[in-house]
Amino acid sequence: MKILDNINYPSDLKKLKKSELSKLCEEIREFLITNISNTGGHLSSNLGVVELTVAMHYVFNAPEDKFIFDVSHQCYTHKILTGRKNEFLTLRQEHGLSGFTNKDESKYDTFTLGHSSTSIAMATGIAIARDIKKENYKVVAVIGDGSLTGGLAYEGLNNISLLKSNIIVILNDNDMSISKSVGSLTKYLNKLRAKKRYFKFKSTTTNILCKIPFGKFILKRLDKAKRFLKYQFINQSVIFENLGFKYVGPIPGHDIDTLITVFEEIKNQNEKILLHIKTKKGKGYQYAENNPTAFHGVGKFDKNSGIIKKSDALTYSSVVGNKLMKMANKNKDFVVITAAMTDGTGISTFYRKHKDRFFDVGIAEEYAVSFCAGLSSENIKPIFIVYSTFIQRAYDQIIHDICLNNLFAMFLIDRAGIVGEDGKTHQGIYDIAMLANIPNLVLVAPRDTIELENMIDYGMSQSLPIAIRYKKGTSYPTKFNTYTKIKLGKYEILNKGNDIALIGLGAFFETAEKIYFLLKQNGINATLINPRFVTPIDKETLHEIALSHKLIVTLEDGILSGGFASQIASYLYENGLNKIDMLNFGYPKDFISHGKREDIIKRYSLDANSITDKILEKYKALK
Amino acid sequence: MKILDNINYPSDLKKLKKSELSKLCEEIREFLITNISNTGGHLSSNLGVVELTVAMHYVFNAPEDKFIFDVSHQCYTHKILTGRKNEFLTLRQEHGLSGFTNKDESKYDTFTLGHSSTSIAMATGIAIARDIKKENYKVVAVIGDGSLTGGLAYEGLNNISLLKSNIIVILNDNDMSISKSVGSLTKYLNKLRAKKRYFKFKSTTTNILCKIPFGKFILKRLDKAKRFLKYQFINQSVIFENLGFKYVGPIPGHDIDTLITVFEEIKNQNEKILLHIKTKKGKGYQYAENNPTAFHGVGKFDKNSGIIKKSDALTYSSVVGNKLMKMANKNKDFVVITAAMTDGTGISTFYRKHKDRFFDVGIAEEYAVSFCAGLSSENIKPIFIVYSTFIQRAYDQIIHDICLNNLFAMFLIDRAGIVGEDGKTHQGIYDIAMLANIPNLVLVAPRDTIELENMIDYGMSQSLPIAIRYKKGTSYPTKFNTYTKIKLGKYEILNKGNDIALIGLGAFFETAEKIYFLLKQNGINATLINPRFVTPIDKETLHEIALSHKLIVTLEDGILSGGFASQIASYLYENGLNKIDMLNFGYPKDFISHGKREDIIKRYSLDANSITDKILEKYKALK
Repeated sequence: MKILDNINYPSDLKKLKKSELSKLCEEIREFLITNISNTGGHLSSNLGVVELTVAMHYVFNAPEDKFIFDVSHQCYTHKILTGRKNEFLTLRQEHGLSGFTNKDESKYDTFTLGHSSTSIAMATGIAIARDIKKENYKVVAVIGDGSLTGGLAYEGLNNISLLKSNIIVILNDNDMSISKSVGSLTKYLNKLRAKKRYFKFKSTTTNILCKIPFGKFILKRLDKAKRFLKYQFINQSVIFENLGFKYVGPIPGHDIDTLITVFEEIKNQNEKILLHIKTKKGKGYQYAENNPTAFHGVGKFDKNSGIIKKSDALTYSSVVGNKLMKMANKNKDFVVITAAMTDGTGISTFYRKHKDRFFDVGIAEEYAVSFCAGLSSENIKPIFIVYSTFIQRAYDQIIHDICLNNLFAMFLIDRAGIVGEDGKTHQGIYDIAMLANIPNLVLVAPRDTIELENMIDYGMSQSLPIAIRYKKGTSYPTKFNTYTKIKLGKYEILNKGNDIALIGLGAFFETAEKIYFLLKQNGINATLINPRFVTPIDKETLHEIALSHKLIVTLEDGILSGGFASQIASYLYENGLNKIDMLNFGYPKDFISHGKREDIIKRYSLDANSITDKILEKYKALK
Repeated sequence: MKILDNINYPSDLKKLKKSELSKLCEEIREFLITNISNTGGHLSSNLGVVELTVAMHYVFNAPEDKFIFDVSHQCYTHKILTGRKNEFLTLRQEHGLSGFTNKDESKYDTFTLGHSSTSIAMATGIAIARDIKKENYKVVAVIGDGSLTGGLAYEGLNNISLLKSNIIVILNDNDMSISKSVGSLTKYLNKLRAKKRYFKFKSTTTNILCKIPFGKFILKRLDKAKRFLKYQFINQSVIFENLGFKYVGPIPGHDIDTLITVFEEIKNQNEKILLHIKTKKGKGYQYAENNPTAFHGVGKFDKNSGIIKKSDALTYSSVVGNKLMKMANKNKDFVVITAAMTDGTGISTFYRKHKDRFFDVGIAEEYAVSFCAGLSSENIKPIFIVYSTFIQRAYDQIIHDICLNNLFAMFLIDRAGIVGEDGKTHQGIYDIAMLANIPNLVLVAPRDTIELENMIDYGMSQSLPIAIRYKKGTSYPTKFNTYTKIKLGKYEILNKGNDIALIGLGAFFETAEKIYFLLKQNGINATLINPRFVTPIDKETLHEIALSHKLIVTLEDGILSGGFASQIASYLYENGLNKIDMLNFGYPKDFISHGKREDIIKRYSLDANSITDKILEKYKALK
């Protein structure tokens, strides 16, 4: 019989003796490893916070007390302890558990979120709302050291002075965000870590100073009822204290007894506390401890051997990595920039081989883009590789720093379109609407990985800001395997047919191609177009098509609102060409929950068969 | 004869003796006060950096050495010294000098920019490009303490470790951004300021420690040729030094001798230097010194009396301020948030009277929105008032923190549309495209100030995230002065006519109204619509109009790309209603330079007469 078998809610947890908690943590760890080996998910970060999360739920009273997990991919133990243990085999699958905190899933989840560095701001908002309503609960934000590299987290620290009462910010310091943490603050944290750790207790009557080596802990021997400890670590942090926090730390984050004692101490203090805890990513699973990055967001793996099941197929990301390696040998005037996503974006080899031309700026997309402006103004070409969902964080910098100055910059936008298992917080379906409407910016999408390489070459030969968006995963074997030269704002016409013009953008060109052959089976010789450019649009081709065809069909793997099709609709209206009919396929203006990419495409009837049916229906009505 | 008469370029400046520079600074100050009293402009900040700018140009060699002025509204002395002195009477006027650094204006201007907190990132990019190309110039960023409240500035400080060589960041500390600087860092800077200032010199052979009271300065007495000073102030900054800088400061920023000596010292050091200088906004003009906020961005004023020429007309901003005051008395569950724009947005009275419900978060728009999410999740209603151009900085937070969580938040978007004199960097013409395509967000625009109040009431009664965009300046006297009830996604029909439907969004309803009467003079009884909602759109009304009219005319004071009209075009196509013709009026997808709002409207032929002509032309062709 396992302890975990009887734990479903925090109320169950609170019935346990403290001495049982270590065993519970071991069981949770085992549960996580077993389950994630079957479903995939964020393993390393979750193994790092088992004790922290158990201690939080043991000492605090969620959901009255509010927990905000920054990024929130480390919320699995929290989910296990808040009624969702038995759903873990559905993790990140269609209709299953989300991999992030999710308001719609549980009252224990304060927010639905998956982006970094927001938690201190959100927690401060909650704490101030609490104070205005004269309520009296605790607000606890958990933020990793990686997330602290984001400016929004700093704005959170800096604005802590807005709050007049109490809040607890737990800095979960694992010396490692997704990529290695970077920047001066990381060095500073290293300094804090490196110092000898010992506690200083100030009770109301006596001062007790005791040196405590790691792992041993004597606090619990003190009679808690008798003391009101205002303790702090000798090892003070000038930075955090100058920012207005009471700094406590660093605390050994896998020592459940220590964590509970510290939480019990700080729980009732009316102060703004920054609690610095030291954890290890992948803790307790040797393969993850040795290679936490590989097990950050991992697919299925063999639990015993630690071997991750991977296909050998070449992904868009790895094609980018290889392409940049090839370019680096010939071309000395470009640099590669990532915002803490070296591995996900396929550029870890480039990082290892070309350290002098590689810049990881931390989770600081705004900085990345402003930094691009500086480099570009002096004719070093910046290539910033970023997930679609995270480029949203640099919207103003793209407009103001790059496009207003009309500087070269190449944004390689990975994970565009449906990303699948990460779900609502990470879908790359808003970038077309975001980027298509920014002056001076060229936005393109390749139909496959070969064209992706061609587009990189094309972009590098130009002096314009250019964004290239491409999907997660692998390319497909096109039937149209010759590649014409790329020209600014010119669509590629793969087949000149009649009546129906299929325009399939980027990853959805594959669908357009399938539809083309399905229509052929129905005796229709459609025009098949790979538009390449969202903006500028190909006015000439559109004009000609509008006058020579009966129906335009557009496909794009983003929301339709403000996207590719809307550019075409506006163009047609602007030029009085609106008599031609048009069908636009893409995602609705909505947040789209997790599931396999293919399943989500079917969910929205964006597969080739569904679309072909609708085209045929419309076509019959037109005739 | 004034010294300034012979100064047009840095080369002229460098011919002066150091002893002449104080007088030059006085003359520049006089020049600024006289000119800005005639043209309007940013007075306070420019008076604060006269000595700093003169010293920079005297010691460094622009444009080989690169200066990046953060925000750059403090660049007037820089413009005076770089060939633009004689154009100052055209400042901020159509075809005249820009009020910000402008790449197209001068090779001395490194970037065109007007948004805050970008300079350290940009400067680091330049410095790294320089190092890659093995060049050897200096890079100097000038950033105010207000700009340091932005997370991007912190990302800049944190990423200084990317740079292996040298850079100079000048912290221009005037204890005051546009609104009073806020946050813990400000308190920290106050602490630095408060300490007794004295220098410690370490020469290669001797250590000289000398206390130097303000204003007196003995450095220059030392024989410069003989010493290699590695000096630093005893008054160290742990924060900046932990971030990887060599900290020098605080330096008295109006003492030209000190500034020059310090610049000469640090110029050739191969280090990352943060130079903290202390200046006074409005320095040398008593009215501005006493009320720097009033003279921040000021209109024409009487130089002798300091009386600012203001009209008494009620602006949209002041209507918002008054409205919030009225609401505050009845309603205890909302708070007001600004990102360092208390005065500009009309809420200074609210700030003074309701300090407990007012939050100035500094120049930290991302924080403001994440903070809203926290407040709103606990049912305190956040109202964030922000300029259109700055809401761009919180794009991801609006999507991810607010709209994904479908939380109430009210964004009052001031300065939407053409802002006029601030020009390219500040035009509020991108917000429709930005906000119209975000799921769950309601976007509305009032036709006048009365409807603005109604919309605030409407928004407060709902639980949705809502953005209300309104123009700079005053409202107009409508002929349609009854106001119907606001309903979600319902347009207001002011006149039901036939053939032509005029849909005039927000501030451009005024134009639509004028066109309506012009058409009437031409015998056309047009339908006149105040759409109120950009999104959700009024499908029912559009459907009916599409079937009953010959022509739809839309007007919006934003770029057309991705904007209001594009939502309508997409709707018409989506529903096979595209046979109706449409004319869309708005700004092109471009950056629009400064000038009076009315002049810019004419520049783009968006005045009522020009549009009426085009409508009549189209209408004739249709018949």
